[in-house]
Amino acid sequence: MGQPFVVTPKIKLKQFDPNFSNGLDKDEIREETAQLHKRIGELQYLLYSNARHAVVVLFQGMDAAGKDSSVRNLLVHVNPAGVETANFKEPSSEERAHDFLWRIHKAVPRYGNIGVFNRSHYEEVLVVRVNKLVPKEIWQARYAQINAFEKILAQNNVILLKFFLHLSKEEQAERLRDRLQDPRKNWEFRASDLDTRAHWDEYQVAFEDMLNECSTPACRWHVLPADRKWYRDYLVAKRVVEALEDLKMSWPKPKEDLSKIKIV
Amino acid sequence: MGQPFVVTPKIKLKQFDPNFSNGLDKDEIREETAQLHKRIGELQYLLYSNARHAVVVLFQGMDAAGKDSSVRNLLVHVNPAGVETANFKEPSSEERAHDFLWRIHKAVPRYGNIGVFNRSHYEEVLVVRVNKLVPKEIWQARYAQINAFEKILAQNNVILLKFFLHLSKEEQAERLRDRLQDPRKNWEFRASDLDTRAHWDEYQVAFEDMLNECSTPACRWHVLPADRKWYRDYLVAKRVVEALEDLKMSWPKPKEDLSKIKIV
Repeated sequence: MGQPFVVTPKIKLKQFDPNFSNGLDKDEIREETAQLHKRIGELQYLLYSNARHAVVVLFQGMDAAGKDSSVRNLLVHVNPAGVETANFKEPSSEERAHDFLWRIHKAVPRYGNIGVFNRSHYEEVLVVRVNKLVPKEIWQARYAQINAFEKILAQNNVILLKFFLHLSKEEQAERLRDRLQDPRKNWEFRASDLDTRAHWDEYQVAFEDMLNECSTPACRWHVLPADRKWYRDYLVAKRVVEALEDLKMSWPKPKEDLSKIKIV
Repeated sequence: MGQPFVVTPKIKLKQFDPNFSNGLDKDEIREETAQLHKRIGELQYLLYSNARHAVVVLFQGMDAAGKDSSVRNLLVHVNPAGVETANFKEPSSEERAHDFLWRIHKAVPRYGNIGVFNRSHYEEVLVVRVNKLVPKEIWQARYAQINAFEKILAQNNVILLKFFLHLSKEEQAERLRDRLQDPRKNWEFRASDLDTRAHWDEYQVAFEDMLNECSTPACRWHVLPADRKWYRDYLVAKRVVEALEDLKMSWPKPKEDLSKIKIV
């Protein structure tokens, strides 16, 4: 029983079960997740009022692994005014004309805000590697560059929570079929998702290397079993609450002696 | 005779003469500098057409050390369309709400362009240190963060040329007096420059530490004697030409077989 979520290199991805849910009860966990989401709403208010830290929640995973739904569910009780979301699709021509971390750093939220990275700089060692968009020595050098970059962020009060949504190939097939059949989901389907699926094993190798190379003391990777959406949402919410509570925030002290202020 | 310009830690700033000009003749050097400036214009065209590297020229130095004039003179023959200049004044409230490298990374130019940083992230270990804006452990940790950041840039084809304009206290007095007396220069005078001047020795210590801590193999600091403007401009131009020529650029090869293309 039990399966680690935090990556301590080196791990073998095959030893992580995408369908794991620790024998927990779906309905009970859903109830608990709802409480955690409310708690995130409260903690965000403290984060915002103190404005000393920024928290970035980053998602990577295969197509249909649940990146978009994870974002939507996580933020259900969060004030959008304190959220900065970034969806890192294929780089624009302007982004491509800069170093690969340029667009990422630009999207790092201000202190007090929660940032969400749907995909990230890790695409530069995933799709870029699998599709051979740059030579090996280029993408391989990026692991160290990413670690250095994330360490700088950590040292400057930017808390980066990295979640790899670990989906099984069977469950992906289910979800893609669903997108093909359900008219409300058709818009989510892209034929290119099938090309990516055809490279499934290469992606698993790229993910495993990413997890082992870039789960550093300054910034850990989490492998979350993603076949069961309710369990995935629960784990994300739990970790985000923990990270926010670790900041031990309280309401900022007033800057003036409020007891002497009279409002007439 | 001779004085090093490239910093190999550890150096003592006192051993660098701000008035040094290597016994050279002012008129001859001015002529040579003009040729170098033309050459920079040509090399920029190659840089732009290849769009594989970005070059950033960074200036630090006391008030009136010549940061603004260095920029203006360096770029005299350069097409402004390929230049991105950044003047890092006191951080805005938006900049202050992010990690200190956020505004710097945003200003890194696109490949093919020349960037100019008038002041830079180094203010975070200079004015911030002298004016005690943050505790020592914060600014001291920034040396390593800066080195890691600049190494990432170097590994991603961003060539950063760092120039410390080394001015004497006497020459600064001359130039500040000039700003007070010449109506065309009054606008450049700020009473706060005198506050900074009052902390001269503390700034020299902060500069020396910056030079020793952050002149790395990936990105060297240069100490340029700045009392004589003609010699300063010559050294900047010479180093920029060298750096551009080191790239061994040639005109990009056509992507199609141009010999078969007929224009009718």
